[in-house]
Amino acid sequence: MTPYETIRLKRDGAELDRSAIEEFVRGYLEGGVGDYQMAAFLMAVFFRGMTPRETEALTAVMLESGRVLELASVGSPRIDKHSTGGVGDKLSLVVAPVAAACGVRVPMISGRGLGHTGGTLDKLEAIPGLRTDIDAEGFERIVGDVGFAIVGQSDEVAPADRRIYALRDVTATVECVPLIVASILSKKLAAGLEGLVLDVKVGRGAFMSDAERGRVLARALIDTAARLELPATALLTDMSAPIGAAVGNALEVAEAIEVLRGSGPDDVRLVSLALAAAMIELGGLATSRTEAEGAAEQALDSGRALEVFGRFVEAQHGDPRIVDDVTLLGEAPVRRPVIAGPGFVRSIDALAIGEACVRLGAGRRRLGDPVDPSVGIVIDAPVGSELGRGAVIAHVHAASQESADEAAASTLAAFEIGAEAPGERDMIIEELQAGSPSSQG
Amino acid sequence: MTPYETIRLKRDGAELDRSAIEEFVRGYLEGGVGDYQMAAFLMAVFFRGMTPRETEALTAVMLESGRVLELASVGSPRIDKHSTGGVGDKLSLVVAPVAAACGVRVPMISGRGLGHTGGTLDKLEAIPGLRTDIDAEGFERIVGDVGFAIVGQSDEVAPADRRIYALRDVTATVECVPLIVASILSKKLAAGLEGLVLDVKVGRGAFMSDAERGRVLARALIDTAARLELPATALLTDMSAPIGAAVGNALEVAEAIEVLRGSGPDDVRLVSLALAAAMIELGGLATSRTEAEGAAEQALDSGRALEVFGRFVEAQHGDPRIVDDVTLLGEAPVRRPVIAGPGFVRSIDALAIGEACVRLGAGRRRLGDPVDPSVGIVIDAPVGSELGRGAVIAHVHAASQESADEAAASTLAAFEIGAEAPGERDMIIEELQAGSPSSQG
Repeated sequence: MTPYETIRLKRDGAELDRSAIEEFVRGYLEGGVGDYQMAAFLMAVFFRGMTPRETEALTAVMLESGRVLELASVGSPRIDKHSTGGVGDKLSLVVAPVAAACGVRVPMISGRGLGHTGGTLDKLEAIPGLRTDIDAEGFERIVGDVGFAIVGQSDEVAPADRRIYALRDVTATVECVPLIVASILSKKLAAGLEGLVLDVKVGRGAFMSDAERGRVLARALIDTAARLELPATALLTDMSAPIGAAVGNALEVAEAIEVLRGSGPDDVRLVSLALAAAMIELGGLATSRTEAEGAAEQALDSGRALEVFGRFVEAQHGDPRIVDDVTLLGEAPVRRPVIAGPGFVRSIDALAIGEACVRLGAGRRRLGDPVDPSVGIVIDAPVGSELGRGAVIAHVHAASQESADEAAASTLAAFEIGAEAPGERDMIIEELQAGSPSSQG
Repeated sequence: MTPYETIRLKRDGAELDRSAIEEFVRGYLEGGVGDYQMAAFLMAVFFRGMTPRETEALTAVMLESGRVLELASVGSPRIDKHSTGGVGDKLSLVVAPVAAACGVRVPMISGRGLGHTGGTLDKLEAIPGLRTDIDAEGFERIVGDVGFAIVGQSDEVAPADRRIYALRDVTATVECVPLIVASILSKKLAAGLEGLVLDVKVGRGAFMSDAERGRVLARALIDTAARLELPATALLTDMSAPIGAAVGNALEVAEAIEVLRGSGPDDVRLVSLALAAAMIELGGLATSRTEAEGAAEQALDSGRALEVFGRFVEAQHGDPRIVDDVTLLGEAPVRRPVIAGPGFVRSIDALAIGEACVRLGAGRRRLGDPVDPSVGIVIDAPVGSELGRGAVIAHVHAASQESADEAAASTLAAFEIGAEAPGERDMIIEELQAGSPSSQG
């Protein structure tokens, strides 16, 4: 089939078979299909969608475009967690050591932040010395020795995804469920997983702004994973307000360590334990979710997860003393309180907080931009807090007084403060499993 | 606005303002907008369409990307005819001299054949010596002296259209009304016209296979022309069967000359006179359509149109003797009859005949391929003919016996022969004018 023919069929709503998708994607990598043809195809997919069979084929073709790790030597069960991205999302730093402390092997290939959502690699690199550019052999060794490792995507993994993603990013074809699914799963399948827990975030600060769209994405992810014989569970979690108190790389590492010490914000603890329990259950290390939750909680409260985290930091060349002394992460030169009140904190716009952090230098607008590990925003008054007059609702950590003032104004504007207390916030909205109807969480 | 933002807005169904379209198209010509971004944009337009205002803006921006001829020196009224392309469509060779003989100035910039539809330039170049690569000054002089000229598009005219068209051709975004409208009108407006008659062909052999889609295209063309202050009239004409008897470059020139001599197939004469009359009326050279029709008929029957055609051939460096002796056009080495019957010719598949001619070498699959002027198919038994047993229904003119046999088989297959006579065929289906509801023709 010619590239033209493939584009035309997709444009007209036909279902493409695997060989057509394979020929088109391979042609793109080899040069016979132009960037302009892939761009037209992606836009046609945006409008026409893809059937489950097409999504499966695209994922498989993208996976097979690169190296697939086996990782059998690290043992079983090999389960990863993937988040669709949020503001203040440091959950991987808690979930991975908790799950690892319970016997799960977590080979986590992670990404960098882009736009208002942060990236786990950027957070980890706030730890002095820590490296995420670990080769496949080192990755396998650390997962085997420590129980988890978190590294960047090597150029060898799913090169088709990397090229297609870069094209989607400049042709307004990012927000498209089958393309998102193929991008996520092709990379995850390359890490030799036996199971995957998906944290699909919904709300103002998330990629999917409402639960309905989040549910569609979660369902497509777990169904496509099932077709590719990867057992998967998806949790829809709330991202209307930032998760936890800290937003910013070093600040989030410090908060994750706090949670691993048994304190820290409740929401981070709650969602981290839920995700770790889903991994434990999916890996067959517990006979029920309740048992898995108990194991996760025990790993956290006993300090075993913190200990695993320390070994991980050391294995990836970071300074392991940060576990006991988070001041080693460094501090921004300016620290400025944000004052408001009186009233109840009714909501905190996660998107606005995320964007204020990008302007502070904590995130990036374009791939390749540097980030400042020390800056960010810490929320002192979470949603539901009752404030007196002149209460401190947040602190801005900034590189200069000027940027602190700007971020303080943005932070204040992100808070909705009113006379009435807000309703309860359900952090875990829903859980979806392959082949089962969704259940309320 | 960034290119990304323009694509996203169109993707999401917003109406782009003229400055956004201008910035995007100019960016494309200057290199700031990539081929891949234009391709994604075009596919988004395919799905979202364009409002009349957007179509007008795109047409104007494409027009202004190149040189706009004034042509005031040739006098008024300057009216052109444009056909959306068909099989056996030699009408320009009749319409232009008839209209010119009635006082219309016809500065016709024409195209080459692609796929199953022929191109006027290829037909003209079957005339020994005739050149269509005439510069703007020569073009203006010939229109002034003779009354009409037919030349190829110079590189200076609407370069944005040329680049965008080449991209549409490989990204399956050709079949899109606003893009077709902008492509046609930007080139036509560049020729300093005062009016335009559109021959929108519908049926198997046409770009628009049914009348409903043809009507939508015709309406978009005349409405956009009106917004750009170009008075226009559109005729929907039948292209279910080839028009006239001849399909193939030299064969069609010979047939056009026959019609200019007052004989030849009725359908060619009828539609040519209707188009010429519409031009005469649009140019204000008649007070009614009936008067215009009379003038056109008189120009044809008196031999004045043939005389103008001869002067045109000479002005464009062709051998003017072909007017009196069409054998000077040359003949293909093999001439093979196609036999069928008995029964009535119920239909002749124009697409199949057009494709058989491409295989004979009369047309091209890719821009730049050479064509053989002498080959083609002449239909001896038009739709409605009653055939005895073993009747000659057509002749194939071919370069070799082998290609003649193949074309004869394809020709035979293109004929539907049955026991009952077919219904009457309305060559002119409908006429549409700017601002008026369509009227039955």
